[in-house]
Amino acid sequence: MINSLKTRRTIRKYSDKEVNDTLLNSLLADAFRASNNGNMQTYSVVVTRSPEKKEKLAPLHFNQPCFKNAPVVLTFCADFRRFSQWCEASGAVPGYNNFLSFFSAATDALLVAQTFAVAAEDAGLGLCYLGTTNYNADGIIDALELPQLVFPITTITLGWPAETPAQPDRLDPQGLIHQETYKDVDVKALYAPKEALPEMQAFVKENGTKSLAHIFTDIRYTKPNNEFFSDALLKAIKRQGFMF
Amino acid sequence: MINSLKTRRTIRKYSDKEVNDTLLNSLLADAFRASNNGNMQTYSVVVTRSPEKKEKLAPLHFNQPCFKNAPVVLTFCADFRRFSQWCEASGAVPGYNNFLSFFSAATDALLVAQTFAVAAEDAGLGLCYLGTTNYNADGIIDALELPQLVFPITTITLGWPAETPAQPDRLDPQGLIHQETYKDVDVKALYAPKEALPEMQAFVKENGTKSLAHIFTDIRYTKPNNEFFSDALLKAIKRQGFMF
Repeated sequence: MINSLKTRRTIRKYSDKEVNDTLLNSLLADAFRASNNGNMQTYSVVVTRSPEKKEKLAPLHFNQPCFKNAPVVLTFCADFRRFSQWCEASGAVPGYNNFLSFFSAATDALLVAQTFAVAAEDAGLGLCYLGTTNYNADGIIDALELPQLVFPITTITLGWPAETPAQPDRLDPQGLIHQETYKDVDVKALYAPKEALPEMQAFVKENGTKSLAHIFTDIRYTKPNNEFFSDALLKAIKRQGFMF
Repeated sequence: MINSLKTRRTIRKYSDKEVNDTLLNSLLADAFRASNNGNMQTYSVVVTRSPEKKEKLAPLHFNQPCFKNAPVVLTFCADFRRFSQWCEASGAVPGYNNFLSFFSAATDALLVAQTFAVAAEDAGLGLCYLGTTNYNADGIIDALELPQLVFPITTITLGWPAETPAQPDRLDPQGLIHQETYKDVDVKALYAPKEALPEMQAFVKENGTKSLAHIFTDIRYTKPNNEFFSDALLKAIKRQGFMF
């Protein structure tokens, strides 16, 4: 039983203590043992430590404090370039400039990222995933100089924890598990415990919205923003050569 | 340190021993602690145990023996339906029928799947990911009765191991890690140890191809197949309402 899975929480504040390369490389090597499609290992990890590069990337991650504060930032990329180059070096003709290959490589990259996250947290490190990677892929491609068939899928900020926030709530697991076929659940009942939490009620008050759901639909994840960034994401996928 | 990460290998043969619901639910509850976008938990898991449902799904997974043999099959789905229903029940207007929301929910689902995989393997279970989920999403949607805004992202076959295969090779981790910016690696050197493995040389001989790379480009993951299934995958994403 991996106890750190049960006690984990996202960490956004890091101490000054260095994350040394030996530890980082050993955790990444463990992560590379994760399942992957056809043992093609179609992923790469870009390590950011330099202040110059962090300054370039920070606005692309909306200047989130956890980004600025982190001693190490890891960008996990879908990568069919290296594999395609190997095919070409062998005289074979690769055919991985398409959406299926993109999605397969993205899956590989995410399984590696999460295996890394589990291993790092178990080693006492703290981390935060940045969903902003999907919003500003185009800028990240430029900043990290990602060539064709390489695409930034997710980002992890990493360091030794300098905070112990409360563990966030989760929905009743039984509301998320379906037996044999998908069946709608009673959403009112499933979300009632979340809506009753004092911190959620305070959150609604602060934001001045009618309900907790309105914070998501009207402020945090709005339809116009989602549509704008959908368009940008699809364009970036095309730019990297993944739509034939 | 999680030793099971270092020693893991995919397991495709399972014993007759049952995987009981208490264990399964407890591992899933741990997995639901994984990081997710905005704590929206936009994923669902469909559990398949019944022989009838397995018979329906088997051809969609190309009748892989690990599928037929597994006591439990888990399909991890991107799910913005439940969240959207909660928004509507609160009088808010959800805007999650777009590609960004699809990709965000797919990411959530994959982080849960991999956290589950790590926890399950650490508990002594064996499992195999099925990439075929992305090939035949349309049929899986029908078989599992997935409604709008629910999409099958990956599948895990699960059971107690009845084999101990050799651990597969991995590329030198240093070939996959880039400092500050992406730089091309010497692919000939990086892949040489893989190509020199006796099992890989035997594999090339069996397949009668010019090189190991040709097995991928000409037999296993061909350009026409990739393009055919890219099209099917994009159509299925649209069918489920994720392209506005």
